[in-house]
Amino acid sequence: MTHRSSPEPPEPTVSMPSPEAAASDTTIRRRPGGHLLSVPGLSAAAIATGVKPSGDLDLAVVDLGQQVTAAGVFTRNELCAAPVTVCRERLARDPRARSIVVNSGNANAMTGEQGLADARAMLERLESRLGGPALVLSTGVIGVPLPIDLVLDGIDRAAACVTRDAGEAVARAILTTDTCTKTAAVEVDLPPTENEPQRTVTVGGTAKGSGMIHPDMATMLAIIATDAPLGPALAHDILVTAVDRSFHAITVDGDTSTNDSVLLLGGSATMPEILPDTARAHALTHAVATVASDLALKIVRDGEGATRVARIEITSARSHAEARAVASSIACSSLVKTALAGGDPNWGRILSAAANTGIGLDADRLRLCLGGIDVFASGLPLPLDPPTRDALDTAFSASEVLIQLDLGLGTHTAVMHTTDLTKGYVEINSEYTT
Amino acid sequence: MTHRSSPEPPEPTVSMPSPEAAASDTTIRRRPGGHLLSVPGLSAAAIATGVKPSGDLDLAVVDLGQQVTAAGVFTRNELCAAPVTVCRERLARDPRARSIVVNSGNANAMTGEQGLADARAMLERLESRLGGPALVLSTGVIGVPLPIDLVLDGIDRAAACVTRDAGEAVARAILTTDTCTKTAAVEVDLPPTENEPQRTVTVGGTAKGSGMIHPDMATMLAIIATDAPLGPALAHDILVTAVDRSFHAITVDGDTSTNDSVLLLGGSATMPEILPDTARAHALTHAVATVASDLALKIVRDGEGATRVARIEITSARSHAEARAVASSIACSSLVKTALAGGDPNWGRILSAAANTGIGLDADRLRLCLGGIDVFASGLPLPLDPPTRDALDTAFSASEVLIQLDLGLGTHTAVMHTTDLTKGYVEINSEYTT
Repeated sequence: MTHRSSPEPPEPTVSMPSPEAAASDTTIRRRPGGHLLSVPGLSAAAIATGVKPSGDLDLAVVDLGQQVTAAGVFTRNELCAAPVTVCRERLARDPRARSIVVNSGNANAMTGEQGLADARAMLERLESRLGGPALVLSTGVIGVPLPIDLVLDGIDRAAACVTRDAGEAVARAILTTDTCTKTAAVEVDLPPTENEPQRTVTVGGTAKGSGMIHPDMATMLAIIATDAPLGPALAHDILVTAVDRSFHAITVDGDTSTNDSVLLLGGSATMPEILPDTARAHALTHAVATVASDLALKIVRDGEGATRVARIEITSARSHAEARAVASSIACSSLVKTALAGGDPNWGRILSAAANTGIGLDADRLRLCLGGIDVFASGLPLPLDPPTRDALDTAFSASEVLIQLDLGLGTHTAVMHTTDLTKGYVEINSEYTT
Repeated sequence: MTHRSSPEPPEPTVSMPSPEAAASDTTIRRRPGGHLLSVPGLSAAAIATGVKPSGDLDLAVVDLGQQVTAAGVFTRNELCAAPVTVCRERLARDPRARSIVVNSGNANAMTGEQGLADARAMLERLESRLGGPALVLSTGVIGVPLPIDLVLDGIDRAAACVTRDAGEAVARAILTTDTCTKTAAVEVDLPPTENEPQRTVTVGGTAKGSGMIHPDMATMLAIIATDAPLGPALAHDILVTAVDRSFHAITVDGDTSTNDSVLLLGGSATMPEILPDTARAHALTHAVATVASDLALKIVRDGEGATRVARIEITSARSHAEARAVASSIACSSLVKTALAGGDPNWGRILSAAANTGIGLDADRLRLCLGGIDVFASGLPLPLDPPTRDALDTAFSASEVLIQLDLGLGTHTAVMHTTDLTKGYVEINSEYTT
C-alpha cells in the first residue's frame, strides 16, 4: 500500500502529532519489542502449511477473544484479490470480527470465482474453529490457485494451538520478501472522564511489506488492535487518520498491490466505550497513529535494495492535498531517488519534481532546505561556502536524509518517507522470475 | 518531455496512422539521413562557445529564410526555464519566427530575473544578425547563470556562417547527455486541389533528449520544420496531434524537465497555404507526426541505461484518455520496467499497474498478450505449454517487446513506448554529481 493504494481519505479531522511528537507525549509510551499480542485478550498461532516451498511459517490465525469492532482500509488497485473483496463485503455488512486468518506464499489474486470460493471457505473453516465473524488476508504469488486443502488443514491445526506467546511467530508467518519482522506496540493513558479515573490501554500491531515492489510476492498488510472498546464509526475514523499519516505517507516505488490491507480491531476491556470527539478518542487516535507510523517506517526501511530513507516535509501549502501531491511527486521521482542513492544533494531534481504537480508553485516563494541547510530561496540557488557544501554532502549521505520544502502559499503541511533507488532494487526486481 | 510535460491535448481530431502505417503510406517517404535542413530554404550554423567545458559544439542558430508561421508546445513543469517563458510570451503575441537559437550546456533555468534578461538578450542579438522574430531554446545545467558574454559572442560568430550543410552539426550542438544525434525527415505528396496539381513538400526535424532523466543536464528539445506554408491555427493543431502521438507517448522515467520544448515551423514554398480540414492538411499532419514519432523513438532508444524498449498498445478503452492512462501506468511502473530489464514476462506486474489507474477495469474482460502470446483472459491466467512459455521468454528478451492489453470496454486506443529500468540507469543517475 502506498499513498495511492486506498480511497484518498479526507483531510484528517483529528489533529495528530508527528510520530516524534507522539513519542515525546508522556501519555504514550512505546513498548520495546511489543507486537500485536501485546494487546490483552488476544491469542494466536502460526504454522507452516507447505504453501511456501521453503517450509517457512506461512499461516497465522488470531483469536480476538470475543466479537470486537473491526475497520479496514484496502487497496485501490482495481484487480483486488479475493480476500480483499470478501473482507470488504463482510465489513460493509457487519463491522465486527472474532477471528482473523492470514496466509502468505499465495495471494489468491487473479484467481477468478474459485478464488472467491476459496477465501470464503477459509473464513467458514476459521469460524467453525474460533468463532466468527472471521476476516482473511493473503499475500504471495499472483494468479496461482490457492492450495486450499493445505490451507484449510493449516487453519485446523493453527486454531487448535493459539497462545498468548505467538506474537513474533505471527509477525514471521505473514512475511514474503521482507528481510525482518515488523511489529510495534504502545501503552496510552486515556484521560479521566466524569465517571471514570484515568485508564491505560494498549495498542499493538504487526505488518509486512518491503515496499510494494513485488506484486507477485508482496503486498502491504497490517493488523492493529487495541483493548479499548470503540464503535464502528470511531474505529473507521481512527484507522483512516492513522493510515493517512503512516502507510499512505511512505513509498518505495509508487506501485500498489492487489492485496494491500490494513485492519483495526477494537477491544473488550471492561470500561465504557470510547466516544468520538472526546479527549479519550484523541489520545487513542494518537496511539494508533504512532503504532501505524512505526510499522510504516519499518516497511520503508526494509524497502528492497534501499540504503537510505528520506523524510520529505512540505510546509506552507494551500491545502493538505496540495502538500501531499508535492511530497508524493518528490518521493516517487526516479531522479530524486537515484540522487539519494548517490548521496548527491541535487536540489534541481527535487524542485523539478515538486514543479511537476501542476498545483501552481511560485518559484520566488519556495524555500528548500536539505539536511537543515538552505539551498534555494527567492527563486535562486543560494551560494554555499565550501564548509557548508561539505556539510550538505555529509547530510545527504546519511542513512536518514531530511528534505524540507516550504511552498510559501498557505498553512498546510504533509510528510512522506521514501527510499533511494539503488542497483540493488533493480537487481532484486529484474532477476526475480515468475 | 513525457506524456505529462505539456498541456494535455484534447483527443486529436485528425486521424493519424501509427508510424508503421505512415511508413507504408506511399504518399510519405522517409529520407534516410534526413534532418532539419533537409527542408528547403533553411540554413544554420553550429559552434562551440566554451559554455560546455568539453569544448564540444554548444550553440546553433537556424535561419528560416523568411518569416514563417511558428507553433510551440512546452513543458508543464511549473518551474519552467527563462527561454520557455520568453518563447511562450512571444508566440502568444505573434506566432511567427525568422530565426532560432539553441544553446546547450546551460539551461538558463532557476536563474530568476537575470535569466529572463539573458534569454531576451539572446533573441535581440540573433534578430540583429538574422532578422526576427527569433525564438530561443536552452538545455543544460540548472541554476547557474548563463555565461551571457560567451553566448552572445557565439551568436555573432554562428550567424555569420550559416549554410545548408549544417544539419548534422546542429543536431550535435543541441545534445547534452545523449549518446547519438536524433534527426529525421520525410517527403510527402500533397494531393492535388482544384487549382493545383499534386505537390511534394518536405518535413525535417532534429531533437535531443535521452529520457528526461537528467534535469540538471537534460531536457527534451525538438525542432520540426516544413516548407509547406500554413497558418497559425493549423500549425498548432498539427503540432498538438503530432506531439500527442510521439513525444507524449514515450517515457523513460516519468520526470519532466524545466526546459522541454517542441517547435513546428511552417514554410514559404510558393504554393497556396495549406488550409485546415483538407486532404492536404491531413497528409501534412501524417508527415509531421511521422517525423515526430521517429525522433521520439530515437530518444527512447537512447534512454540512459536502456537495453530494451517496450511498445505498449492499449485497445478497447472507453476513451483515448483512459487508454492513455492505462498505457502510462504500465509504462511508468518501476516493477514493469525492472521486469523488462530482466526479460521476465511478468504479466502480474503489468495487470497490477494497469489496475492502478482507477478508471474502472473489469478483470473478466481483460486480455493481455505479450510478444503475440495470450497470457491472461476472462479473469484468469492462461495455461501455457512449455514451448509456448519458451516462446514467451524469448519474446520478452528481445530488444523490442510488444505488450498488448485489450480492456474490453470500448473502442479507443493508445500506444506508448517505454524503456527498461536497469542498473545502468541507476549508475548514471546516482553517480552524476551536481
